[in-house]
Amino acid sequence: MGIRFLVTGGTFDKEYNELNGELLFQQTHLPEMLTLGRSRVDAKITTLMMIDSLQMTEDHRTLVARACLEAPEDRIVVTHGTDTMVETARVVAQLVPGKTVVLTGAMIPWKFGSSDGLFNLGSALAFAQVLPTGVYLSMNGRWFPWDNVRKNKTKGEFEAISTD
Amino acid sequence: MGIRFLVTGGTFDKEYNELNGELLFQQTHLPEMLTLGRSRVDAKITTLMMIDSLQMTEDHRTLVARACLEAPEDRIVVTHGTDTMVETARVVAQLVPGKTVVLTGAMIPWKFGSSDGLFNLGSALAFAQVLPTGVYLSMNGRWFPWDNVRKNKTKGEFEAISTD
Amino acid sequence: MGIRFLVTGGTFDKEYNELNGELLFQQTHLPEMLTLGRSRVDAKITTLMMIDSLQMTEDHRTLVARACLEAPEDRIVVTHGTDTMVETARVVAQLVPGKTVVLTGAMIPWKFGSSDGLFNLGSALAFAQVLPTGVYLSMNGRWFPWDNVRKNKTKGEFEAISTD
Amino acid sequence: MGIRFLVTGGTFDKEYNELNGELLFQQTHLPEMLTLGRSRVDAKITTLMMIDSLQMTEDHRTLVARACLEAPEDRIVVTHGTDTMVETARVVAQLVPGKTVVLTGAMIPWKFGSSDGLFNLGSALAFAQVLPTGVYLSMNGRWFPWDNVRKNKTKGEFEAISTD
Repeated sequence: MGIRFLVTGGTFDKEYNELNGELLFQQTHLPEMLTLGRSRVDAKITTLMMIDSLQMTEDHRTLVARACLEAPEDRIVVTHGTDTMVETARVVAQLVPGKTVVLTGAMIPWKFGSSDGLFNLGSALAFAQVLPTGVYLSMNGRWFPWDNVRKNKTKGEFEAISTD
Repeated sequence: MGIRFLVTGGTFDKEYNELNGELLFQQTHLPEMLTLGRSRVDAKITTLMMIDSLQMTEDHRTLVARACLEAPEDRIVVTHGTDTMVETARVVAQLVPGKTVVLTGAMIPWKFGSSDGLFNLGSALAFAQVLPTGVYLSMNGRWFPWDNVRKNKTKGEFEAISTD
Repeated sequence: MGIRFLVTGGTFDKEYNELNGELLFQQTHLPEMLTLGRSRVDAKITTLMMIDSLQMTEDHRTLVARACLEAPEDRIVVTHGTDTMVETARVVAQLVPGKTVVLTGAMIPWKFGSSDGLFNLGSALAFAQVLPTGVYLSMNGRWFPWDNVRKNKTKGEFEAISTD
Repeated sequence: MGIRFLVTGGTFDKEYNELNGELLFQQTHLPEMLTLGRSRVDAKITTLMMIDSLQMTEDHRTLVARACLEAPEDRIVVTHGTDTMVETARVVAQLVPGKTVVLTGAMIPWKFGSSDGLFNLGSALAFAQVLPTGVYLSMNGRWFPWDNVRKNKTKGEFEAISTD
């Protein structure tokens, strides 16, 4: 009863193109990060797309939801850009009943050394193993239900909408 | 209702002494690691000792258990050397009822760059927030109840004793 | 009889802005890099500007040359973007007689972890101490006189124009 | 007319054994360091031994000198532990006329992330290309003739014996 990772790109996987000084996507770094973390969780990785989450359309989000549905696993981690992570979580929540789906990402690309990505990956993988059925975001060491979270773009962190 | 971190040392916090080429302990790196991970969990840190877990006596383990008991928080992460993490977990389990305590550590010192410590810290912090009352180890992206885990010293990883 | 460092920006000093995902300049990282390299060279650092070398005008280059002239030291290292490093070297060569000036930079920002910047800094500092009067580029572990070097933008490296 | 690298081990190449927590030698990291520094110097690497320089006997030092003599190149960089680097330089100076030999090393292992090794490698490679015939140490961004240098073990840096 393993974990499925669905990769969509986002800052998590951005790299620096030294020939033109721009940021780009190549392969996901998820496998090397799991190796570095010495993960022994039974995990499979599927790359769905490699894009900035600002480029994501409703079709892309539906594709993520469908991949959650079709995965044999009931526990799923989605790596995703932070800017529209909440929107994708909403689509997944509408279309994917009966599974535990945790979306996570990074504020700094993993390849840039001081990344929060490895920490977030550790958290998301843990939350995905123990949270009950539902759709969640995991950022800043915390977890949020999909319908009570927003990105605070001034602070660059995620927070609950209401704390009742 | 925050998290209490109790620091005991271990490989997690070892450093390299460039004057004599030996490994040593100085201050814990936990605060900078939480900053790097952009943790926004309400967390307080107490350093209990800074030692290799092979140097730990029964008194040291009792001191860890007492600190768990006396902490105002019900959810606690203990950073610990891997070699005797299981033994300390046993003592904590005997003396600390009614709290969620997660022990974690690292195979490579955080200061040595390719550390599994940041990943483990993310996982342990997540498990400590959601697991029910009990004493657990968190290593290799996984969690184990204190009485069903051992360190496989050949592989350098943790595993369940029985998988029934 | 120390070394003067003149900082102009370039990839060497670029950072990642985690709030908007763009690259930016803040302070130079030269002091921390010299500390990391345990440099004990008598060195002083002057930041002239913090810009991409594609933004450099002839006025900027003249300003660099004037700073070389006015520095009390005879041996100078200029950190610079790679795209127009050769053009600035030409202006310095025209205006600054009687000093040893070495321009260097990086293909990957220092802050992005796998940077060539620390290696180049070590090389440039060495070349500046022992090369005779003249203006040079130091990249890829090599040194080039200012009038026999070009950036190969396809390979992302510097090469001699003629090898006679 | 390239550069020959002779590898002898030293802190430069030490690694951490995560199974027993001790330091050890495996392969030299010189090739990956030159790749990271984007070196385009024509360089060949020979590993002579992989030992701590405190273990070096007079025979080891003679072996280093002989390898300098037998190398087809006239410009040589020797990577070496810092504790007895000066002693090996003396033996090389006695036995190897007519070549430029630069010994260098590191205070922190390259694999431990915050190493001075990459900086020293850049400096040593530069000095080896431009210094006249002779035997030198390159550490702390500086160069020293073999007979006017000592390691200050309190400060962990190299210094001239006399500064006349």
